[in-house]
Amino acid sequence: MTHGTELKRRPSRTRRLLSVFDGEALSPPPVWLMRQAGRYLPEYRATRSKAGGFLDLCYNPALAAEVTLQPIRRYGFDAAILFSDILVVPDALGQKVSFVEGEGPRLSPLADGKAIAALSLEGANRTFSVIAETVQRLRQDLPAETALIGFCGAPWTVATYMIGGQGSSDQATARSMAYRDPQAFQALMDLLVAASVAYLDGQVRAGADLLQIFDSWAGSLPEDEFDRWVIAPTRDLVAEMKRRHPGVPIIGFPRGAGEHAARFVRETGVDAVGCDTAMPLGQIRATLSGRTVVQGNLDPLLLVAGGARMKERVRQIVGKLGVNPFIFNLGHGIVPQTPPAHVAELVAIVRDTKQTG
Amino acid sequence: MTHGTELKRRPSRTRRLLSVFDGEALSPPPVWLMRQAGRYLPEYRATRSKAGGFLDLCYNPALAAEVTLQPIRRYGFDAAILFSDILVVPDALGQKVSFVEGEGPRLSPLADGKAIAALSLEGANRTFSVIAETVQRLRQDLPAETALIGFCGAPWTVATYMIGGQGSSDQATARSMAYRDPQAFQALMDLLVAASVAYLDGQVRAGADLLQIFDSWAGSLPEDEFDRWVIAPTRDLVAEMKRRHPGVPIIGFPRGAGEHAARFVRETGVDAVGCDTAMPLGQIRATLSGRTVVQGNLDPLLLVAGGARMKERVRQIVGKLGVNPFIFNLGHGIVPQTPPAHVAELVAIVRDTKQTG
Repeated sequence: MTHGTELKRRPSRTRRLLSVFDGEALSPPPVWLMRQAGRYLPEYRATRSKAGGFLDLCYNPALAAEVTLQPIRRYGFDAAILFSDILVVPDALGQKVSFVEGEGPRLSPLADGKAIAALSLEGANRTFSVIAETVQRLRQDLPAETALIGFCGAPWTVATYMIGGQGSSDQATARSMAYRDPQAFQALMDLLVAASVAYLDGQVRAGADLLQIFDSWAGSLPEDEFDRWVIAPTRDLVAEMKRRHPGVPIIGFPRGAGEHAARFVRETGVDAVGCDTAMPLGQIRATLSGRTVVQGNLDPLLLVAGGARMKERVRQIVGKLGVNPFIFNLGHGIVPQTPPAHVAELVAIVRDTKQTG
Repeated sequence: MTHGTELKRRPSRTRRLLSVFDGEALSPPPVWLMRQAGRYLPEYRATRSKAGGFLDLCYNPALAAEVTLQPIRRYGFDAAILFSDILVVPDALGQKVSFVEGEGPRLSPLADGKAIAALSLEGANRTFSVIAETVQRLRQDLPAETALIGFCGAPWTVATYMIGGQGSSDQATARSMAYRDPQAFQALMDLLVAASVAYLDGQVRAGADLLQIFDSWAGSLPEDEFDRWVIAPTRDLVAEMKRRHPGVPIIGFPRGAGEHAARFVRETGVDAVGCDTAMPLGQIRATLSGRTVVQGNLDPLLLVAGGARMKERVRQIVGKLGVNPFIFNLGHGIVPQTPPAHVAELVAIVRDTKQTG
């Protein structure tokens, strides 16, 4: 089966973005943007309004594929990213997940080890197969040159929502449980690794060319906890995916990892690292660029502002990082108030860059 | 007047904590904790309930001095920190500030340059003199060996509240205004530098031994913006305070500064740097320790958990950082659910450390 996937992937080097994983520094660099399918697009809002709740949209393969394709039609990005959500995994594990308009996700929080032990992988594949169907449709409908990215949340970040019950700026509830009951927390990590493997495996078999693991809350942890709850589960997840699908590149996005980023890459075995907005280009160049594929890192708020400052910063990023294998992206997701015209402008600026370094 | 302050300060080297600013590595290190006066203490909650609103407590010198003293009586910390709030400055500048129980501060947000231009330093000194009165009382009531820390919020962090109207995890509103209208934003920075100088100057004249500048949201900015909105205003503030009170040490606390921390110290001229919870000890040791006074960085949630892991981590921190001039602290403020007994335990562990490095 792995072999079948490989056979399907080989001719895909016509998908330009994948060449960076062969060590090529492309000029101009390939470009896609985190949350490129989303509320800033009027066509997304129109489709979204037909779907019912947010998870209903994720679980409707026709509509989810449609919103995935919308930014590709508009901007011709080098990659599409499956429209889904990192909280599909807790939902598939039997935890109640809902989305409150304008406030974000709400989950019935896991209070202790008993609540964690009550979760089960058993029914999860039914949910995952719905998402895989979206991927299948996408592989058929996407232009041949567009790479398709599958994804999941990293175990740590998903756990912060499962334990906290919602987003927070310091992830205090999850961090406290990890201190108070590390055994229970480890059991949750192990379950999330297994669920994420099943989820990503389904996406690859359905046609995803590469994968991204979103660890949005990696930055809040002290070093020992970073090792234990960010690096270790990601390493386990990557190792199992590499065993099953050795040719499928994996991008890690440990947002806020700062000083830990280089070690994260070495120890987890990811093929690329997403750099957040705060990571200085000098640090990326000195510690990551040329050793792994780098992706990033324009401030999404500079995309909202647009104009000369955006242009200057894009050129600075491409000038510094584009001399090595590099994928242009934001340092975090597109925000709803982004003018769609600025995204078109951004893509034009990136495609207009010439490598001089 | 500066001279008078100096005369008062000289004999204060009986205040052990101040010796680290002469380059001494004390064993055991001096210790105080951010937000050591606060809701985790029953006596604080009792005093708080007498005060009315939260700002009423800050503006009541007798009660504010009382809550400042409470943790000193309990734990004998090496320093007391004035009980006040970083939002006293916007309040003094004429912006409406209130505190919603359990939700944090609410301000009527500054929408544009016109709203910024409407702010005025004119009436601010009346407010600042009330705070200075608290400092005066404290200097009389504190034990002779206890250092007294004055403080303010850094211009960037205070501005994020003034523009956003409340706390947020990404400071998007302030960051967007800084991109959209950098002139107006610079005017706000300049005003905040001037107001903070007036505020801190009053605290020093009233008897503060040293100062801390809290930049809780320094971590969200890309490098150019970090230079412009974190480093530059802090440098201006430090320079003016050094001109007025050259002998008064200043601790900068650029939370989330990560890779930027060493440059922050060099370029702002602070005498010490507060390290947040996420900063690895190896990085602190390699880039800060021995070049400046270091303060930090136990995870406040590990203080909630207590026990063997806390003890081990405290010893690790003191072992690595205590060989150079060092102040033991948390990496962020004490949280309300902290058991007071754990704080006593923490102080005992710190005082029991012996330098072997």
